[in-house]
Amino acid sequence: MLFGAVETGGTKIIAAVLDENRELLDSIRFSTGTPDEAVQMLADFFTEKKVCAIGIGSFGPVDINQDSENYGMVLDTPKKGWRNYPFLSELKKRIEVPMLIDTDVNCACLGEITYGAAKNLKNVIYITIGTGVGVGVCIEGETLKGMLHPEAGHILLRKHPDDEFKGICPYHSDCFEGLASGPAIAARTNTPAELISADSKIWDIEADYIAQGITNYILTYSPCKIILGGGVMEQPHLFPLIRSKVSSYMNGYINTKQMNSLDDYIVPAGLLGKQGIIGAYCLARKAFYMEEAD
Amino acid sequence: MLFGAVETGGTKIIAAVLDENRELLDSIRFSTGTPDEAVQMLADFFTEKKVCAIGIGSFGPVDINQDSENYGMVLDTPKKGWRNYPFLSELKKRIEVPMLIDTDVNCACLGEITYGAAKNLKNVIYITIGTGVGVGVCIEGETLKGMLHPEAGHILLRKHPDDEFKGICPYHSDCFEGLASGPAIAARTNTPAELISADSKIWDIEADYIAQGITNYILTYSPCKIILGGGVMEQPHLFPLIRSKVSSYMNGYINTKQMNSLDDYIVPAGLLGKQGIIGAYCLARKAFYMEEAD
Repeated sequence: MLFGAVETGGTKIIAAVLDENRELLDSIRFSTGTPDEAVQMLADFFTEKKVCAIGIGSFGPVDINQDSENYGMVLDTPKKGWRNYPFLSELKKRIEVPMLIDTDVNCACLGEITYGAAKNLKNVIYITIGTGVGVGVCIEGETLKGMLHPEAGHILLRKHPDDEFKGICPYHSDCFEGLASGPAIAARTNTPAELISADSKIWDIEADYIAQGITNYILTYSPCKIILGGGVMEQPHLFPLIRSKVSSYMNGYINTKQMNSLDDYIVPAGLLGKQGIIGAYCLARKAFYMEEAD
Repeated sequence: MLFGAVETGGTKIIAAVLDENRELLDSIRFSTGTPDEAVQMLADFFTEKKVCAIGIGSFGPVDINQDSENYGMVLDTPKKGWRNYPFLSELKKRIEVPMLIDTDVNCACLGEITYGAAKNLKNVIYITIGTGVGVGVCIEGETLKGMLHPEAGHILLRKHPDDEFKGICPYHSDCFEGLASGPAIAARTNTPAELISADSKIWDIEADYIAQGITNYILTYSPCKIILGGGVMEQPHLFPLIRSKVSSYMNGYINTKQMNSLDDYIVPAGLLGKQGIIGAYCLARKAFYMEEAD
């Protein structure tokens, strides 16, 4: 049995076919373009591969509420042609297999609790810090949906006293994403994040913002594991800095085994950049077995 | 059939007996004292009333994970005698009926989604602003537990530019609770909150902190309804101020029917101060029917 997994991003879309043992058999990657083109590419690829179900991790905002009549619709996006595009139902018109859709970050979190760094845990958050800041959330093993879906990359943080940068979020200027995403680092320093040396004081500021975000997520979600991914987190020197600052911000307030062992609590992704597509694969499996059960 | 409901607080404990129609038949209230005394008082009261199950809303931190061997244990509290006291198991030694325990604020949230302002909704948060700031969370109809339980009243906020008060939280000084609880208002102004006139500029500062908290909760939890309770929220003039500031902070970022109708989204508790005890009653019912199903 073969499963289809899709990750739609702002600039590119990845589609993969995996077998029951999570073996990657084939994949394609193409520019995002118009949604009609994307849907046709995906339908052609998955029809040829004879997948039995499809899971999709989508950029947001997207309607991920399975009870909604607009389930699978891309919502208020600035991306040309995609706003209010009924992505899932258009794909279903072209290929009739069970499908589920969730946000890209919720999928990554699902991948990590199923096969990655948080295997067998049920309450976990996945934070990606790259082009943007996004947070995927699993509660009792299920991705968090609610009114829309978490948008926790945009929480308000305190400005670091040495930081004069005003932030780049078009909605909130200096929210977490506005201050700490890869493009924010680049705009602040006129240097791409990956070229900044590890001893630059910019990393102290960056780690402070990430630690503030994590502190607030610990207090709100009470996660059993916190997983960090995305381009910015490929700088391994950030991890000890972040853990130390989280510890300062929390100041002993929550006394659990996890908080007393931050090296095991705040960790890199286990799926090495594949967490999104593996999460979409988990969704595909779920879609298939839900249909079987009906 | 009669159900026992308990609310344990820092200074007092309330116990009530309600019937299947949520009619209050009897209640007692006593000072918190030592945990052994409290357990004995509760056991005597409920044994005499012949309740079939008991639900408890407890002050935190408390182990609310039903799979934990310490389920129902009060954890790191400064309250004399209560630290690491196995409250639930001590009560079970004295009265053998099904019991469940959760935090006081999770109970209040459960009460509100079952019978109150968020009836029939599954993803809801309840914020109490009084002696402290606490947040109860229901996700898919279940209270949020995770590593410990939410402690979202302690999230980090931005200092209001006109506020020189340094905050009163012993752990974080100027977290949400440190800046915006009733005692913080009183310490800042040397006046009890209820005596401050509605046109004082202190309310603008207070509403700003509450709005920052709510903004971050919307972005993290994605709730379908936000319910506000506690002593400070008995000032009705705060509601429009808070809604307006939430709207400014969000700046149109999340475009849902709820965000476009904040009067229905950010609302006072529907159970008029009884949300905690009613939530404990919901837990008692759940404990009873869980045992029945076994």
